[in-house]
Amino acid sequence: MKVIEGNIASPLGFSADGLHAGFKRKKLDFGWIVSEVPANVAGVFTTNKVIAAPLILTQSCIENEGQMQAIVVNSGIANSCTGEQGLRDAQTMQQWAAEKLHIKKEYVGVASTGVIGEMMPMNILENGFSKLVINGNADDFAKSILTTDKDTKTCVVTETFDKDIVTTAGVAKGSGMIHPNMATMLAFITCDANISTQTLQQALSEIVQITFNQITVDGDTSTNDMVIVMSNGCTNNKEILPNTSDYIKFKAMLFHVMQDLAKKIAKDGEGATKLIEVNVTGAQNSESARMIAKCIVGSSLVKTAIFGEDPNWGRIIAAAGYADTTFNPNQIDIAIGNITVLSKSTPIHFDKEEMQDIMSKDEVTIHMNLNGGQCEGKAWGCDLSYDYVKINALYTT
Amino acid sequence: MKVIEGNIASPLGFSADGLHAGFKRKKLDFGWIVSEVPANVAGVFTTNKVIAAPLILTQSCIENEGQMQAIVVNSGIANSCTGEQGLRDAQTMQQWAAEKLHIKKEYVGVASTGVIGEMMPMNILENGFSKLVINGNADDFAKSILTTDKDTKTCVVTETFDKDIVTTAGVAKGSGMIHPNMATMLAFITCDANISTQTLQQALSEIVQITFNQITVDGDTSTNDMVIVMSNGCTNNKEILPNTSDYIKFKAMLFHVMQDLAKKIAKDGEGATKLIEVNVTGAQNSESARMIAKCIVGSSLVKTAIFGEDPNWGRIIAAAGYADTTFNPNQIDIAIGNITVLSKSTPIHFDKEEMQDIMSKDEVTIHMNLNGGQCEGKAWGCDLSYDYVKINALYTT
Repeated sequence: MKVIEGNIASPLGFSADGLHAGFKRKKLDFGWIVSEVPANVAGVFTTNKVIAAPLILTQSCIENEGQMQAIVVNSGIANSCTGEQGLRDAQTMQQWAAEKLHIKKEYVGVASTGVIGEMMPMNILENGFSKLVINGNADDFAKSILTTDKDTKTCVVTETFDKDIVTTAGVAKGSGMIHPNMATMLAFITCDANISTQTLQQALSEIVQITFNQITVDGDTSTNDMVIVMSNGCTNNKEILPNTSDYIKFKAMLFHVMQDLAKKIAKDGEGATKLIEVNVTGAQNSESARMIAKCIVGSSLVKTAIFGEDPNWGRIIAAAGYADTTFNPNQIDIAIGNITVLSKSTPIHFDKEEMQDIMSKDEVTIHMNLNGGQCEGKAWGCDLSYDYVKINALYTT
Repeated sequence: MKVIEGNIASPLGFSADGLHAGFKRKKLDFGWIVSEVPANVAGVFTTNKVIAAPLILTQSCIENEGQMQAIVVNSGIANSCTGEQGLRDAQTMQQWAAEKLHIKKEYVGVASTGVIGEMMPMNILENGFSKLVINGNADDFAKSILTTDKDTKTCVVTETFDKDIVTTAGVAKGSGMIHPNMATMLAFITCDANISTQTLQQALSEIVQITFNQITVDGDTSTNDMVIVMSNGCTNNKEILPNTSDYIKFKAMLFHVMQDLAKKIAKDGEGATKLIEVNVTGAQNSESARMIAKCIVGSSLVKTAIFGEDPNWGRIIAAAGYADTTFNPNQIDIAIGNITVLSKSTPIHFDKEEMQDIMSKDEVTIHMNLNGGQCEGKAWGCDLSYDYVKINALYTT
């Protein structure tokens, strides 16, 4: 597998564009991804019971069709909590894209992110469509989906299957309302491999558990989250079948892209100054390890301690203690970076200057060994800073 | 029922003291409550799997004895994650109190709050014991248990049972690590009623679900939380039996004291500028209503919005949506104060100036009607401010 420079249109047969339609004041806020041919598609969606209109529509198209040829996205307005009219607006958005591309409307996915509770401004949407082009500037797509994100998030990898080179590309946006089980997060992944809808969904569902579902910024799950993977088969490789070595290679590609995007979302959480990685080992099972890792990385007290560059392991062990799983609290090892601070639940004296070096970096790793089994799990998040409060106290309704 | 001025020693037969022993630099940090006679006792304790030494000891005494005559408390050092030595230190603390009071050591409860992972400084503890007196300044007890709290939290009520006046008094401390199922919270309640240990425990366990377990400051459950009620029978009233009108009156007293203390803890959360009350009605059952209320009041995005005085109902409904319970997301009413902002899940236009008045108050109430049943539930919390981050980024390990 090779990580390459590129964008969401790097896989064969894809194009993309992004531009300013007017949902936001100045920044890019409207874009699409288009495949030359219908692609097999898989998706995972928010677990929130309040589900935005575009999700309802896109989820049903994926389930009914199993194929998708275009995804159109706006940022600035979430089209969430907008009732029947919101659903009709999402359908219009789908219809307009289908007309412009001369494809079946059920092959168009729609996504929105931004303020909840405001109706879609249809004149702005129309304006956006009038300017979108196929084979536009594909780098701009990654910009057009951002809200309070500071940076675009892109990852592109290639892998050889026999003599065929398959490319997988992903873009994502995150920032606030980021927590387990799909947050305010949009991620779109394109791939030119020949793989069935069912196999694609299986791979996505498995990998989302250990990547996107293991990040948290503020514990708030949003109404609009989705991850969509389209694979159009343009490489003409031999079909990737489940339980083959090709499938393992394919999952490794997808995992690399999804983990990279997940970490980028965590690192660019609202107000974040540091990425926090929590690595729990020695657990009885992986699910338990992941739960503990996510409790630690989601703790406001751990997050503020890391912001203050304070190796406060008391908060780390206390956060582990309220994870909804069992472990022996008397045999825990904790290390921050490579410095052990707790061994078999007993404090270890450490060099404060060396620790200061570790805490001052922009990525801090917490290791916890439960010494109770062979399984492990990771989670990612960010520190909690003054700026998180500022951004969210001032973000307008 | 009458709310009166008083302190933890207001019920007949109780005395208390508080002083500076040296666990903290200057503030009071050591105190006790003593009853003339052994009192029946009930307790609830943290659900965290990491449990501090004093809790292990006190919980086992309550379970084994059903009676207690004194509680001794220090603040500044939590005696948590201190291993076998920590347990021996808690036992010594119990022993010293028993010797000084000439009572059975199993009748002494011990409690600690403060920094996790530091050993108890036994010379300071000894110094504290040398200065403690029976019939000391009972007002000082409420001060001696505080950590980052800004204010003491006390509530005293009286109620007449036949011709006997029963007094119930409570003090609490909270501030950080405050969340469901007992947080970094200590609450001690004294009462002079004649009531059995079993009836007392039943009342406490029931009321804790709708009071202390419904507050959250930062979602972090601590290792040291406990609520203890001692009732010494000094009023000589007719025994309060379950399923009687006296029991209902008794529970009303206990509920008043516990709800008052819970709200005071929420309002004095670290960095808080406002108390938030969430009132969920129209639920299928009370548990569901309480879960939704607690999700809303615990949402970082709701908390920052309230700090910013922004009526962001989108975040309120999104937070409700990730509560682990079911409801119809399409028929929700939301009001902030007395202003409706959402009706049957459709946005309602409201007067921005009137709303500004409501949002600028130091107590903000959010009402959510699910329109799906007859049950209701409340939760309390506080806004998330720059000062929360400041306090917790700088609190030292």
